[in-house]
Amino acid sequence: MIIVLKTNASEEQIQHICDRIEKMDLMAHLSRGTFRTVIGVIGDEAKAQVAPLEALPGVDQVVAIMKPYKLASLDAHPQPSVVDVSGVKVGGGNLAMIAGPCAVEEEERMDRIAAAIVDAGANILRGGAFKPRTSPYAFQGMGKEGLRILRDVGQRHNIPVVTEVMDPRDVELVAEYADLLQIGARNMQNFSLLKEVGDSTRPVLLKRGMSATVQDLLMCAEYILSKGNSQVILCERGLRGFDSYTRNLYDVACVPIVKELSHLPIIVDPSHATGKPSLIPPCALAGIAAGADGVHIEVHDCPEEALSDGPQSLLPSQYEEVMQQMQGLAQLLGKQISPLAGAISS
Amino acid sequence: MIIVLKTNASEEQIQHICDRIEKMDLMAHLSRGTFRTVIGVIGDEAKAQVAPLEALPGVDQVVAIMKPYKLASLDAHPQPSVVDVSGVKVGGGNLAMIAGPCAVEEEERMDRIAAAIVDAGANILRGGAFKPRTSPYAFQGMGKEGLRILRDVGQRHNIPVVTEVMDPRDVELVAEYADLLQIGARNMQNFSLLKEVGDSTRPVLLKRGMSATVQDLLMCAEYILSKGNSQVILCERGLRGFDSYTRNLYDVACVPIVKELSHLPIIVDPSHATGKPSLIPPCALAGIAAGADGVHIEVHDCPEEALSDGPQSLLPSQYEEVMQQMQGLAQLLGKQISPLAGAISS
Amino acid sequence: MIIVLKTNASEEQIQHICDRIEKMDLMAHLSRGTFRTVIGVIGDEAKAQVAPLEALPGVDQVVAIMKPYKLASLDAHPQPSVVDVSGVKVGGGNLAMIAGPCAVEEEERMDRIAAAIVDAGANILRGGAFKPRTSPYAFQGMGKEGLRILRDVGQRHNIPVVTEVMDPRDVELVAEYADLLQIGARNMQNFSLLKEVGDSTRPVLLKRGMSATVQDLLMCAEYILSKGNSQVILCERGLRGFDSYTRNLYDVACVPIVKELSHLPIIVDPSHATGKPSLIPPCALAGIAAGADGVHIEVHDCPEEALSDGPQSLLPSQYEEVMQQMQGLAQLLGKQISPLAGAISS
Amino acid sequence: MIIVLKTNASEEQIQHICDRIEKMDLMAHLSRGTFRTVIGVIGDEAKAQVAPLEALPGVDQVVAIMKPYKLASLDAHPQPSVVDVSGVKVGGGNLAMIAGPCAVEEEERMDRIAAAIVDAGANILRGGAFKPRTSPYAFQGMGKEGLRILRDVGQRHNIPVVTEVMDPRDVELVAEYADLLQIGARNMQNFSLLKEVGDSTRPVLLKRGMSATVQDLLMCAEYILSKGNSQVILCERGLRGFDSYTRNLYDVACVPIVKELSHLPIIVDPSHATGKPSLIPPCALAGIAAGADGVHIEVHDCPEEALSDGPQSLLPSQYEEVMQQMQGLAQLLGKQISPLAGAISS
Repeated sequence: MIIVLKTNASEEQIQHICDRIEKMDLMAHLSRGTFRTVIGVIGDEAKAQVAPLEALPGVDQVVAIMKPYKLASLDAHPQPSVVDVSGVKVGGGNLAMIAGPCAVEEEERMDRIAAAIVDAGANILRGGAFKPRTSPYAFQGMGKEGLRILRDVGQRHNIPVVTEVMDPRDVELVAEYADLLQIGARNMQNFSLLKEVGDSTRPVLLKRGMSATVQDLLMCAEYILSKGNSQVILCERGLRGFDSYTRNLYDVACVPIVKELSHLPIIVDPSHATGKPSLIPPCALAGIAAGADGVHIEVHDCPEEALSDGPQSLLPSQYEEVMQQMQGLAQLLGKQISPLAGAISS
Repeated sequence: MIIVLKTNASEEQIQHICDRIEKMDLMAHLSRGTFRTVIGVIGDEAKAQVAPLEALPGVDQVVAIMKPYKLASLDAHPQPSVVDVSGVKVGGGNLAMIAGPCAVEEEERMDRIAAAIVDAGANILRGGAFKPRTSPYAFQGMGKEGLRILRDVGQRHNIPVVTEVMDPRDVELVAEYADLLQIGARNMQNFSLLKEVGDSTRPVLLKRGMSATVQDLLMCAEYILSKGNSQVILCERGLRGFDSYTRNLYDVACVPIVKELSHLPIIVDPSHATGKPSLIPPCALAGIAAGADGVHIEVHDCPEEALSDGPQSLLPSQYEEVMQQMQGLAQLLGKQISPLAGAISS
Repeated sequence: MIIVLKTNASEEQIQHICDRIEKMDLMAHLSRGTFRTVIGVIGDEAKAQVAPLEALPGVDQVVAIMKPYKLASLDAHPQPSVVDVSGVKVGGGNLAMIAGPCAVEEEERMDRIAAAIVDAGANILRGGAFKPRTSPYAFQGMGKEGLRILRDVGQRHNIPVVTEVMDPRDVELVAEYADLLQIGARNMQNFSLLKEVGDSTRPVLLKRGMSATVQDLLMCAEYILSKGNSQVILCERGLRGFDSYTRNLYDVACVPIVKELSHLPIIVDPSHATGKPSLIPPCALAGIAAGADGVHIEVHDCPEEALSDGPQSLLPSQYEEVMQQMQGLAQLLGKQISPLAGAISS
Repeated sequence: MIIVLKTNASEEQIQHICDRIEKMDLMAHLSRGTFRTVIGVIGDEAKAQVAPLEALPGVDQVVAIMKPYKLASLDAHPQPSVVDVSGVKVGGGNLAMIAGPCAVEEEERMDRIAAAIVDAGANILRGGAFKPRTSPYAFQGMGKEGLRILRDVGQRHNIPVVTEVMDPRDVELVAEYADLLQIGARNMQNFSLLKEVGDSTRPVLLKRGMSATVQDLLMCAEYILSKGNSQVILCERGLRGFDSYTRNLYDVACVPIVKELSHLPIIVDPSHATGKPSLIPPCALAGIAAGADGVHIEVHDCPEEALSDGPQSLLPSQYEEVMQQMQGLAQLLGKQISPLAGAISS
């Protein structure tokens, strides 16, 4: 850590700052420049990062050098992590292909959609039972019955399932039914919820918040990792942007950035990132080309009847087409879509 | 609601869309233009807003006309609401002056700070017991003991207190100790938490998320109002911006926008919005000038020792100075800082 | 165009609005809903778009239906345009691979770099002679001598050249030396400059501004097209973002959006979009996968000596590697990197 | 300047970096920490800021300490500058009140509006003769005849005038007619234009670009100052935001930030920043309260007939009302609206 002092910092202030640093069992290394004095903090920077050094009189700027996350960093784990979702491998060249309707609505429909996406090559089935809706008057999900349907359909088609958990009180319940617990973008910094899934034995799909930096995202993963759950998959699903043509702003560069900072797998969600069916296939391919460990796409067999997010869903036939293109691209890059063969849904 | 059709929409598609609208007990009103056909939806638009009409074949764009919030809207309640925080009135010309440290740290310190801010004219004391920190390794708050200290200090100084609640499981506990429940920016769309405080009898301070539109904010207030709790105060505390000079981007125009859409009081928080003590006084005054119903400022008597957010706190003497300026401005605008006199902390 | 009236609009106001519409030789079509009245404007909407209808008393909102650009729109030209840059085709399955240093610095170096990028398969050579620098104290480019070097080097290697023009007074001069005129992101809305290149016979590379919507970009292309120059290539080079880890925020979805709105070719510039060499290859591949008609990459043989933008340049060997990957991807997508063979630099 | 090295930087790389620094006549000061080595660059940092040090092998991060602008900085000129616009003082407690229509349309109308705003207390008249319009099909301004009308009307009402210049070729012409040259937000980084107005003897009103940091804005002022023109007034007019409710996002904190970094006066433009008449008065007051040196407001006597930006104009009566409120606020803050008395329009 480097502390840049104000041009007019007094000797007394400098001494006071050095004293504070040494009280934290760190060393202060003074460097007097032509216009400014700079103090290098030597030792375990983590101790200093949580202290309010910018509030010390005479301090102009504090520059962190060490990353504030440890377990999520590439330093801690130089090889890419491979997360195991009930037999489906994610990361290290293995691609997750998550598909399904926004919300679980009805068992028969879920069955039809599951059959179609498994046929197209998907390896994880999605479906929301607890839905975070912007309006309190919109459909809030089927709850426990939705979880039951999702699990039963997954078992019938021998495909693991993922669903969102929104409330720390529901983590145990959802973990009984789902192979992968999803934390939605709006709850990325719901720290109570993160701690709770950190205590679970289920892997976690952590979606990036709409205005989260990559470091913010990794700090949230760190919350989960630091509780002992090392099975975390990250997901880019679009940022808040200024162009209303799309629902969000798809940040594909997030993928290689995560790769150079962390060992955790990261997938992309072009459905939420764009909100427009026509843009989903090109953005899905862009994600794979950028190095993503998988793609999350909403699929519904009758979007106009969907109870949630219908307008951004692909039809099963459209999904099949983009899956074929992604297969070709994965092959070119020397990666594979993880096979369902070995997967045993819980 | 207006449905704009694609240039090439077929007669069959148009008929199908009209049928769907009529099934919702609404009327479809066709208007064939030179280049496009447009369908006006007549009736209670709320029914149509939650349906995925954009997914209908032939539809290009759906334009909502009615606001999706009802209870929060000015239509529902044309006069400004006045929220009562244990005797301190907020809204309708009555200003809330909330001050105190970011986190409750120690009883004696809290006592000193409370004395100073009451002296300066503040009417609500703040202090965090549960802290949402970006790092799992940073101080997470004193929890229940922090609540106890905050309440006791508040009672000693006869000033109501506000503190953040982060977990739906804690709402009841926090409501025992606090006069006003704060929902932090990161939890603005934590719908489980919103529903829980909606069931409380305590008033709620709802902070705007870093990438929330004003409509998003009002929809979150609607979650609380729709559960029966009508005592909601909104708070602008900065958006995610691109200039790293400040912590956030202070959106002062949010204040008059809320005023033209809603009856709910709105205050500003220049401490979190800017993150820099030097910018807090001018931004506080700007908030009042723009019509805010109060100002939230972090005050600490030794920022360099603060366990959280020290660098953005004002010293008690700095707070006193800005309070004098705000007094003058309030007077000019024909408003008053609500007196503590009648307030009885619970 | 649809005009949504205020709930309390009077009959007199409605009549006045209809009169104004009819004075513009358009038809007003009234639709009285349960809560609101809506007026559809029938006829050539372009006439209405430039009138301040929102200022009419009683008007709440004006919703445009027609796109405000005509020549740039897919309606005007349903097939993808192919731009010819002195023999190198761009668009319609033909990829432009633009490479070279940020600034022209010295003839020998330019020669070495040109040899390397031609060898790697690039088909247009870049190099700045007039440089838009944020600091008035930074190197501003070699001017005319830089243009001379660029052209001579291009001719020696039989590759067309592109360079930026910043001043309307320089358009004629730059057009003498360059095969393709670049308008930089900071000048995207420099309308005097756009009109001037619109009068040129040289094709134009128009870079998207850092906070421009896709519609803003297309409107700027429209300025050029409306002056009679139909040879416009668009370029996405990153938006202003909130994460300081990268220089800008790479908006890859811009590519398929342009494709569904316009016939103009669009390329991507991952060098400026990310500012980090490590991120350029994955983002270049993502661009091609998303449907881009080419990629612009800065290449320098000794980035630490570059007079401008060194830190974001690839080494020739790194460029060669990413070009091989892009070749493979182009083939998979049924596209080709335009051959230099037929190209005759002017 | 501080250069943070990568954890794995070799001794050879470190030596190479030190050599490069010393070749620039600067001193390298090595500081070896527990995890990282850091090099402090001692001497005139400006030399180092324009070199591509981040491209040196072994370098992780370069942290600038000195501001890259000199003439615009408070260090260069610790007292607030007062700009003289043909007798109207701006800065140092003197407020500019700029008002008038978006575009000059007709002499009689201009006369009526000028009379009204002078009556209300404005001290600079605005009116566009060259208009930067997003559409090439929209009204582009009256050009030279517009300049003539503006000057004549200004002289009749004894009020200085400001108008936009968009093209470096027009600077001389516009300077003949206008007392203050406006650089619009879209041209903030049109460096050719900045250099040209830097050569003028007229003061300059420099509007902040929609995605410019405060430092970007000050660097553009530096372009003008470095050419010898020290009469620069800055203007905040809204950033690109994500909430389509307003045209732009009003960044009122820009005012006190400029005040702590620079001596240049800064005014606010709530008309462009919000685009909604109802929001202009509260945002104007917020600007003054935050310390702005003036307010720019569009006024038109019949907004529905305005050829440009009608919907965001105030009526003369609305302007008069907000001027009275601003008068009261200025008085409270110990400032004055500069009197026209001494002003002699050129």
